[in-house]
Amino acid sequence: MKILVVNAGSSSLKYQLFDMDENKVIAKGNCEKIGIGGMITHKRPGKDDYQADVELKDHDDAIALVLKLLTDAELGVIASADEIDAIGHRVVHGGEQYKESTLITDELMAYLEANISLNPLHAPPAIKGIEACRKNCPGKPMIAVFDTAFHATMEPSSYIYALPYEYYENYKLRRYGFHGTSHRYVSGKVAELCGKDLADMKVITCHLGNGSSITAIKNGKVVDTSMGFTPNEGLPMGTRCGNIDPTVVPFLMKTLNITAAEVDTILNKKSGLLGVSGVSSDCREVNAAAKEGNKRAELAIELLVHEAKKIIGSYVAEMNGVDAIVFTAGIGENDRALRERICADMDAVGIVMDNDVNANCPRGEAYELTGKGSKARVFVIPTDEEYMIALDALKLAKSLK
Amino acid sequence: MKILVVNAGSSSLKYQLFDMDENKVIAKGNCEKIGIGGMITHKRPGKDDYQADVELKDHDDAIALVLKLLTDAELGVIASADEIDAIGHRVVHGGEQYKESTLITDELMAYLEANISLNPLHAPPAIKGIEACRKNCPGKPMIAVFDTAFHATMEPSSYIYALPYEYYENYKLRRYGFHGTSHRYVSGKVAELCGKDLADMKVITCHLGNGSSITAIKNGKVVDTSMGFTPNEGLPMGTRCGNIDPTVVPFLMKTLNITAAEVDTILNKKSGLLGVSGVSSDCREVNAAAKEGNKRAELAIELLVHEAKKIIGSYVAEMNGVDAIVFTAGIGENDRALRERICADMDAVGIVMDNDVNANCPRGEAYELTGKGSKARVFVIPTDEEYMIALDALKLAKSLK
Repeated sequence: MKILVVNAGSSSLKYQLFDMDENKVIAKGNCEKIGIGGMITHKRPGKDDYQADVELKDHDDAIALVLKLLTDAELGVIASADEIDAIGHRVVHGGEQYKESTLITDELMAYLEANISLNPLHAPPAIKGIEACRKNCPGKPMIAVFDTAFHATMEPSSYIYALPYEYYENYKLRRYGFHGTSHRYVSGKVAELCGKDLADMKVITCHLGNGSSITAIKNGKVVDTSMGFTPNEGLPMGTRCGNIDPTVVPFLMKTLNITAAEVDTILNKKSGLLGVSGVSSDCREVNAAAKEGNKRAELAIELLVHEAKKIIGSYVAEMNGVDAIVFTAGIGENDRALRERICADMDAVGIVMDNDVNANCPRGEAYELTGKGSKARVFVIPTDEEYMIALDALKLAKSLK
Repeated sequence: MKILVVNAGSSSLKYQLFDMDENKVIAKGNCEKIGIGGMITHKRPGKDDYQADVELKDHDDAIALVLKLLTDAELGVIASADEIDAIGHRVVHGGEQYKESTLITDELMAYLEANISLNPLHAPPAIKGIEACRKNCPGKPMIAVFDTAFHATMEPSSYIYALPYEYYENYKLRRYGFHGTSHRYVSGKVAELCGKDLADMKVITCHLGNGSSITAIKNGKVVDTSMGFTPNEGLPMGTRCGNIDPTVVPFLMKTLNITAAEVDTILNKKSGLLGVSGVSSDCREVNAAAKEGNKRAELAIELLVHEAKKIIGSYVAEMNGVDAIVFTAGIGENDRALRERICADMDAVGIVMDNDVNANCPRGEAYELTGKGSKARVFVIPTDEEYMIALDALKLAKSLK
């Protein structure tokens, strides 16, 4: 069976076409600058990449182009769109309603429309991406896979904020957590690598990328995660501040004489590694500047290390132990020095990394980094959210037959 | 030598007169409703309390009344104000300038005036209290003891927020931490009780009261503390929210159509135990409601337990271990059930409490609660900020002679 996975952003639309019988990606690509010009990059394993500037007025245009390329005589990999058995959509926010991957229905679409305020940044493009697919592939089974769903097992003590309770009742203001598809994928994988059942394990998964979150999974269920109502809680990220004193926000507004929308932009777009270093939101560039002696760049990295250590420690306390810890995503998979710094001097919470193995392990592979005397096994595992989405879509598509 | 300790609030002024040779309080009391009526409670050990409604227009009136009572033929404990060798003032915020208790000079007063924005709630009454004492006791040595000072040893990785760096440079926006005098007192005490030098220990001090903070002290120096730029970071408190997703703040402002000042009031005055439970900001009343089956009251307590566990775990990770943990302040000293819940299932981070000892230890005394197999020794220690202030004032007063 073949599954198309779609991840729609405000001006981009990423896609991957999986052959699930072969467990591989047969084509993937990215439509960019949607609504502000348009270009596409289309890749097939073992063949030259195709790149072109094409006018993309909206997500409709993008999906039509993707289907055209996938079925193109020269550039395509399938004869017709009929070969696609189902389409899996990444939908960031499932709210309290959707706690697992779900067949897309009019009811689900109405829910997403009605709850845009929960996720004003990501919900509109996701809706557009789904609508474009429904229009271009009428009748095709479509599945929504939510970033929040894996975290739906949290108890109120982990997801309620100590704010007036009516905000939870009236506005569903609570911790949701994000990156759930990635945390689910790597936690499943680490159980496999340990030869254990995730249901019998205490696992901490560190998804460190441009956006970063850490999740505590006990007996197969998320018990806590560092992102909250929005993706701007927990670790400092590329441009997001993560944890701060909440009273800083009204202080900044009064001091700078700015609006709620302006402070929102500062907290989400001008903070984090970029705000502290003044160099870049890209961890690699901040690292490079730090190596050249830029003190603010070094401080930005140190803040990330410091907060990661604290969140990991807090989850060891919360679960009373940890059997395995996983590093994944752009920074987690590739920044060996950062992994080493996070795990340094953490034996009191049961974590010891083998620094030599960490320094020399192959890139792009799941690899064990456990050090001598560690109670927890330590791993780097490349994440694969798209594959997870394809698996969920496959399962639901099969259930329809 | 005799030391008067003054703790001035916006409409109150607490005082204690210490006989430092005897190490005891010889009189103490509280002026209330300053500027909105006026009353005083004046206590002397072994004698009847004196309480009276007296018009108190300002802090000046309050200090004049305190001095009158202390030297009163019938109600007094000293013959004249000349017997007071020095006055110690609790000053909440020392900013980055004042890292230890300091003799009050015109320069210090000018600094406090110039930095009211750092601490708009507590700075003005502290200034008024000091000015009233300077006017009523001209020439008397006066010492400022800062809540922030003990935390001045933190590294930038603990005190810098991942916000645009210029906010630190321009507005001194950073973590300061509070309750420092209490954390200093109980950490010194716990070292004494352990028969060790604090300089060789890793200690976590939990000051849990109407305001709450937890501090990590390694080798005698604070390495981290849960309160931040303001006292509204970290644990949920009586009416303060503590840690939340910072983007919640602009979300609330937009959703409720409220100003920065209004959201500040919500975060600081309408949240925490009060906001979640809807019952009270007083932990005892929330506990009582929880016992009667009030689910939101139970949730409020659970949020406090949950966050305390997480912060303790994060500090064990940060220090890579903990030798002693201390509970202090109103809730920490008196709420046995809360102490038990916080320490439950924490052996993975080295903490085991003896629940029987905890349930039966005497009130109002320093007591060891360490359980079998605990790596850390566990204590309850009554705090005494006023005594600490008196000690600092005594030391500085002696240095002047």
